[in-house]
Parts: sequence; C-alpha cells; structure tokens
Amino acid sequence: MSKIDFMRTAFQLAKKGFNKTGSNPMVGAVIVKNNKIIGKGFHEEFGGPHAEVNAIKNAEEKGFSVANSKMFVTLEPCCYLKKKTPPCAQLIVKKGIKEVIIGMKDPNLKVNGKGIKLLKRHKIKTQVVDYLAQNEQLNRGFINLIKNQRPYVTLKICLTMDGKIYNLKNNKENIGDSLQLEHANRLRKEYNSILVGINTIINDNPQLTYRGKDREFFRQPRPIVLDSNLRIPLRSKIIGLKNSPIIFTKISSSSRKFKALTQAGCEIVTINALKPKRILRKLFSLNIQSVLIEGGGKVFSNFLKSKLWNELIIYYSPKFLGKEGLSLTRNLENKFLINNNEIKVKKIGQCLMLKIS
Amino acid sequence: MSKIDFMRTAFQLAKKGFNKTGSNPMVGAVIVKNNKIIGKGFHEEFGGPHAEVNAIKNAEEKGFSVANSKMFVTLEPCCYLKKKTPPCAQLIVKKGIKEVIIGMKDPNLKVNGKGIKLLKRHKIKTQVVDYLAQNEQLNRGFINLIKNQRPYVTLKICLTMDGKIYNLKNNKENIGDSLQLEHANRLRKEYNSILVGINTIINDNPQLTYRGKDREFFRQPRPIVLDSNLRIPLRSKIIGLKNSPIIFTKISSSSRKFKALTQAGCEIVTINALKPKRILRKLFSLNIQSVLIEGGGKVFSNFLKSKLWNELIIYYSPKFLGKEGLSLTRNLENKFLINNNEIKVKKIGQCLMLKIS
Repeated sequence: MSKIDFMRTAFQLAKKGFNKTGSNPMVGAVIVKNNKIIGKGFHEEFGGPHAEVNAIKNAEEKGFSVANSKMFVTLEPCCYLKKKTPPCAQLIVKKGIKEVIIGMKDPNLKVNGKGIKLLKRHKIKTQVVDYLAQNEQLNRGFINLIKNQRPYVTLKICLTMDGKIYNLKNNKENIGDSLQLEHANRLRKEYNSILVGINTIINDNPQLTYRGKDREFFRQPRPIVLDSNLRIPLRSKIIGLKNSPIIFTKISSSSRKFKALTQAGCEIVTINALKPKRILRKLFSLNIQSVLIEGGGKVFSNFLKSKLWNELIIYYSPKFLGKEGLSLTRNLENKFLINNNEIKVKKIGQCLMLKIS
Repeated sequence: MSKIDFMRTAFQLAKKGFNKTGSNPMVGAVIVKNNKIIGKGFHEEFGGPHAEVNAIKNAEEKGFSVANSKMFVTLEPCCYLKKKTPPCAQLIVKKGIKEVIIGMKDPNLKVNGKGIKLLKRHKIKTQVVDYLAQNEQLNRGFINLIKNQRPYVTLKICLTMDGKIYNLKNNKENIGDSLQLEHANRLRKEYNSILVGINTIINDNPQLTYRGKDREFFRQPRPIVLDSNLRIPLRSKIIGLKNSPIIFTKISSSSRKFKALTQAGCEIVTINALKPKRILRKLFSLNIQSVLIEGGGKVFSNFLKSKLWNELIIYYSPKFLGKEGLSLTRNLENKFLINNNEIKVKKIGQCLMLKIS
C-alpha cells in the first residue's frame, strides 16, 4: 500500500463519525508499521476519544507496539489541555511514534500549527499533505463553525415555476413530486438540525425526521422552531421525540406554556428578537454544526437577506399556481441579488434542483 | 458524391430560405447527372418559384439539359393548379427527369402523396427517404401550420427566482443580464412575428426587432399587439416600421383611432373577444408561420392556459424581487400543470434557461 492508500483509508474511517461528532470535526487515523496497517481509529462521538487515541488503542489491543510506527491522520493532532479528552500530540510523543502524516492543519486557533510544532520539538518527523478539499467536504460544518462562529446553513425550498410554495385552495397538494420529496428528505441526514417557522408546524405538523431505509444508521436531526409567541401545540409531532426540539421565542420562562413545553422535553431559548444572527450564534453555543432551513416563506426571506447562509437549494416543479398559490417572498421587503455564487443544476424527478453556493 | 451528400446539399439549400418563405415551407432541390450536380435551387420567398423550378432553371442557364437527370428534393413536389406558382410535378414530367428522391411526403392535404402519384403515373422512379426529423427541424412552423391550422407558438419570459417579471420600484431594471438579453434577442430571428400585450408597448415602448450584427440578412419579425381598447400611442416605435404591426382590438373600424392607425400603416383586426384560439386562427389566415410571445404577464397567462403553445422558454435570473416585483401569474386564476413535456436546461450568462416543449 502507498501513502495515498493509507491516507484514503484514514478519510474513509473519518466518515464513520458522520452525524455523530456534533460540533467536532470528523477525523480518521491509521497506524502503519512495515508498510502494514496495525491500528485504525476515528472520532466516534462528540466528547469521546479522538481518532488518534482510538487508533493507538486499536493497535495495542491487537498486541502491537506503536513505537517507531507511522501515523496517518486526516487533521492535525490537538495539543491543548483544558478540554474533554487528553491531547493527542502529547500521547503520540509518549508512545514513541516516529512519523506523523497530516491531512490538514487544524483551523481551530487553539491548535492551528501548535500540534505540529509540539511533535517537531520532540524530533517526530511531520508532513502536512494538501487534503484541504477532502477535509472541507468532510467537515464543512466544522470548518464553517470555526471560521464564522456559526453553523453551516442551507436554505431549502420547493417552488412552482411562478415562485409559489403552497396551494391555498388545497393544502394537501405537494409542490414537488415523489422523487423530489425523497431527495429533499435525504438531505436531512446530512444536517444536525432542521429549522422551520411556527406556521409550518401549525399548518403541516411535520415530523422533521429522515425517513430513508438506512435511518437506523443515522442520528436524527434536531428540530428547531422559531416561535415568537410560543404558539406551538403541545401535541405537535416533533414534541416527545428522542431528539428534543429547540424552540426560539420571545416569551419568558415564567409563562405557563413555557413550563409545559419544558416539561415535555423542549429546550426553549428566550431572546428579545428572533434575528438570524442571534439565532445562529446561540445554535453555535449549543454545539449545532449544521442547519437545514426548510421554510416557510417568512423564515426563508429573513435568512436569505441576512446573507448568513452557505448554500441555497431550490427545486422548481413544472407547474404554475397563479392566484391559487402563496408566494415565497411575500414578506421580502427589498430585492435580493445573488452575486458571484456558483449555480449547479440537476433534474430530480420532474423537478429541477438549483444548488447555489 | 453519394445520395446522402446530394440530399444533404438539398437541405443546406433549403435553409437559405430561412425567414423568407412566410407560411410556405423551406425546400431545397439539386439536379444530378452522371453523379454530378448540374442544378441547385431553393424556395427563395413566399409566393416565388419553388425549389424544383429554380433548380431546373439553374441547370438550364448553365447550358445543361435536365432530361434523364435525377432530382433530390427535400419535400414532395406539388401538383395542384390553383395557386401562385405552376405545379412542380407536372414540370418534372415535362422536362423528362427520370428519377425523383424525396425527403418527406408533403403534410399539406392538397399534396400529401398526390405529387408522388402523378410522377409514378408518368413512369418516373420515385423514392421517399425518411428525412422527417430534418424536415421538422427546418419547417416546424410550416408543419404545425398544416397540422393544427395555427402558427408555431413559443412563450418566452425572463423571471426572477421568485417568479417576478418587473421591478415596480425601478422600471428600467432588466430582470436578466446582458448575455441573457442578447440570447433572447437572437430568438427573434427564428420567428415571423412577435406578440405582446398593450401594457408592454405603453410601459416599455419596445422596437421588437432583431438587433444582431447579421440583421441585414434577416427579415424582421412582424409586431403583433393585443390591444382591446386601441390604447396604443401613435408614436410607438413599432408604428411606421417597414414591417407594419398587426393590432388585435375590440374597437370597430369606424373609430377615429382605428382610422389614424390604419393611415399610419397598421393592420387592425377587430374581434369581439381577444382569445388565443381566435387570434391564432386569424394569424394562420394572415400567413404567419410562427409567433414568439414576449409578455407581459396577462398575455403569458392567457396563452399558457389555452395550451395552444408549442414551446415555453423561461430564463431564471439569480435574484429575488419580493415585494418590489410584479408577479408573472397575477392574472392566472387557476393552477396550470405541465405534464409529459421535455425540459431542457442551459446556462445563459448568470441565468438559467428552461426550454419546455
């Protein structure tokens, strides 16, 4: 096996942490001796041991000594002390690993080269290879979190060709077709959370869950509801789920509804204005790495114009609703131009999907 | 040269009649003797000699006799008498041509196999090769005209992502960008006429001309205006052009405005209801082969729901106008579903073009 193969294996391991690492990045590591992999590890869950620790443990459990071995790790080993798990760089030194090949410098300023420096100071050979693109794809949420102090935000909506989101005469009518709905549902497994406005909860009472056949292998996204006046019905489907919803409201904790919802397992955040910037800052502090915003029109318009989004996914369904339809942007006061963004197009069922990022 | 080459040459000749044959099809013909082309011809203009006549004339002018030659012609030669030009099948017989290879049976019921029959009756060898697709591409307007007794209709519109056609705060703002505008203008050279509602004339005062660098080589499309109450200003740019506009109205010919417009060169059609079906039937009788419908929203909605269109072209521009924008379908009472149509997508500048047919 070549260096490329070892690194590729480390990235494959990293992916196993998908949707389990919370605000931490996904990381994978392999330990190599005499050109053979003797240990494998990845960051398995938020707060748990890092990939390096798991790889060393895996090798030693199989009876190998990791002294004089090489480690391939997708992200720079950490080196700071005051955190949930012991630092990895120090462990690598202690265990006598002789060389570390690293997929990317950690963008987190608490590490950001300091891990590499520590290894070098202990005469451990280090090499940073340019796996930035792979890491960004793997950890877009994490990288965004560190860079912007907010989760990765995707705005998603399904529209008719004339920009309507809802049939006013028939609220059971789906705007998209079954393949589009399936595609949109599949998006959910890539996000930590799904955010909607209170009207969506009241009108549709959605579950906001990922319903694919492989759903058992994924942690369900956490529902987030923007609900200024705490109008959410206690019998809403999202209440009582294992994944308790986060509700943003203006209502204080002394209200009766607040207490009832808390008792039902909701996490309620009171802020005096439900503005995208404040909401995202709060989600950051709650370890939410990524948010899929699913509507309705008011929430969409507010986040759109805030510019605090990373990706915009629009499905166009081949129909016109005219006067029967509710317009997506009926709350958008001023025009919003999309500049210098990349636009990708794909056909999904009878619909067109635009991905703007 | 092979038979394929001769037929390909005939189709290339046919194209030279582009935008000049009115409601007639584009047709090309070559005459071959000893495997060499001795004469070429195409239908050069509405009312003028047919391709076969021109090809025979071309050969004879060069000093060749066409007796015992072969003719390759893209469409079945005509055979009926009461029309502007003498019938071709009879001329072929008279000139002693021994074989005719034909690209497609004429869908016009006045011919439709009768030309071939006449040739066979005179012991002329005939062969119809399957060039239906080529003919349809060349003559979609003509074929549609014959089949449906109406012109080929394309609905074209440029929308924001939220389905708006116009900035209410700034009527000078283009919805698309310069490349989109150029592309949309280039469409015009493929149509005999451009149809708009009176509000478009009053608000934008457009020229409705093709403005490409090669404009001298094309006949400008004829402007058509739907103007129930004859509100069109006498100073509109489309009045006084070489290509006089056709105006559909409910106002009778006795009105002063009617007379003034007629004097200014307009062709005015009074009908009691400006419905798509009646308008298209009238355009058919006026020898209009194809119509590009450019808006505004009311005209678009009316033709959309009439289903009397062949093609729908929508450009989506990457912007949202929200409350600043005028909705395309504000006059569309009921929803309209697009079923079983083919949708093609292309990027034009910053816009996406959808072609639905």
